[in-house]
Amino acid sequence: MALLGSYPKMVYLNGSIVTSADAKISVFDRGFLFGDGVYEVMTCKNGNFFKADYHFKRLRRSLKELSINFSPDTIIPEIPKVLKASELENKDCLLYIQITRGIAPRQHAFPEQPTPSVLMYAWEKALPEINTALAQVQVQEEFRWSRCDIKSTSLLGNVLANQYAAAHDCYETLFYREGIITEASHCNVFFVRGVTVFTHPANNFILNGITRQVVLELCDRLDIPVQQTGLSKNELNSIDEAFLTGTSTQIMAISHIEDRRVGSGVTGVITKKLQEALRLEKLGV
Amino acid sequence: MALLGSYPKMVYLNGSIVTSADAKISVFDRGFLFGDGVYEVMTCKNGNFFKADYHFKRLRRSLKELSINFSPDTIIPEIPKVLKASELENKDCLLYIQITRGIAPRQHAFPEQPTPSVLMYAWEKALPEINTALAQVQVQEEFRWSRCDIKSTSLLGNVLANQYAAAHDCYETLFYREGIITEASHCNVFFVRGVTVFTHPANNFILNGITRQVVLELCDRLDIPVQQTGLSKNELNSIDEAFLTGTSTQIMAISHIEDRRVGSGVTGVITKKLQEALRLEKLGV
Repeated sequence: MALLGSYPKMVYLNGSIVTSADAKISVFDRGFLFGDGVYEVMTCKNGNFFKADYHFKRLRRSLKELSINFSPDTIIPEIPKVLKASELENKDCLLYIQITRGIAPRQHAFPEQPTPSVLMYAWEKALPEINTALAQVQVQEEFRWSRCDIKSTSLLGNVLANQYAAAHDCYETLFYREGIITEASHCNVFFVRGVTVFTHPANNFILNGITRQVVLELCDRLDIPVQQTGLSKNELNSIDEAFLTGTSTQIMAISHIEDRRVGSGVTGVITKKLQEALRLEKLGV
Repeated sequence: MALLGSYPKMVYLNGSIVTSADAKISVFDRGFLFGDGVYEVMTCKNGNFFKADYHFKRLRRSLKELSINFSPDTIIPEIPKVLKASELENKDCLLYIQITRGIAPRQHAFPEQPTPSVLMYAWEKALPEINTALAQVQVQEEFRWSRCDIKSTSLLGNVLANQYAAAHDCYETLFYREGIITEASHCNVFFVRGVTVFTHPANNFILNGITRQVVLELCDRLDIPVQQTGLSKNELNSIDEAFLTGTSTQIMAISHIEDRRVGSGVTGVITKKLQEALRLEKLGV
């Protein structure tokens, strides 16, 4: 399912704001040659970014893990300019930020003191207050690397898994590693059994999603018991609810895991409660 | 160790030959956003590419595995133009080819009928007839994905492992997966015990290097017994020789694996025999 079906009006690239057609980088950018970069996607409503501090904290962590010497603080003042240039100042939109290690003659090891490349763009996107769509998902054995905690642009594994879902007319593919469900190609996944919510712990096998973090906070606030434990594929037979989380996915109930219906195949009670709590959280209530 | 310390004179990009400075691609190229592309590097001596057919066979396979709809046959006639523009027609050089899925608004799943992007460039590089350098190598537990057989540009894992070697003043890092040595960050690895040569089988855990394939052919021709079996980390204590193979690395003896000297720490007898056989193979003798 597309985040975006067309190009943004304007693009911020290394300090300049240009049209999408003019937004070009060197073929020697390590983002192009090696997938050597990191990214974030955030939502904005009425000029306010949701959990921007969480996104920037994760961005800093990703940069640090890759030893990319760049402070996101330098681009924060540029973001309003990106929105203004794209005529999105007072509109609901999504913002994409990508930072790569920079441009250098091709060699695997890090070049000395490269200048990181910065890409940002925003596009209009009004997310529903509650995502009432139902997701059907596929399941695949994990084949990505074991540093899924880094939000890097070496995304071919995620691309292939997402395409696998699309080819099966599904929204997502869940990964399992040594029999344990970890996450999906661009979402985290939660399960509900009885009154307890289960999700894989935030280790190196999953990307610690911002919506995932918020959902855990909401569970705490709502006194919903949580176990940060991965469920096995077999345990999927005994779940009552399942849902995906993600910045643009928000909280989306899973109706089917492959051919198997989850619960009664509609959004479950706990999932609904969390969707409502997320709605209020986004409204700042 | 750099393949290249400077930019090439000219670059072929989607049908045009331009300077390195002018070689720019859209930020919406999936090579830049997702590492969604494949590549090859070949050597050329006196206008003749070494094992070009092997490289193109592998390139076709990589494209097929990723469902990138592109025939490398269309760029073969362009290669002499790249060499001519770079004034490398009669010089020893390396050629880099990268093909990405193409340009599209960002979404993980494949866009419909994108036009693949093609980058090629060559640079002068006279490889020694025999690589007499000795490699010191580090060892790391595998953390890359399990489709290492695809020569993709989602290379961040390889980049980090190569940087790990560089940070330890080493040439390479060997990976082990479940205790078994597989390959290195941009080379294959061979071991010799007694008179037998060992290397990991060409499955999804290694990139089936062209030099690796040639070395296996040379072993066959020289009646050197080969076992395509991965050795365990512990078995490294009992090896007599070890060497790396790669397009620009050729055959390079390993003198030390971390703190441990391999054999007597110089190029071993079997390694030397294979280096000489590769030299003759390249001369077409």
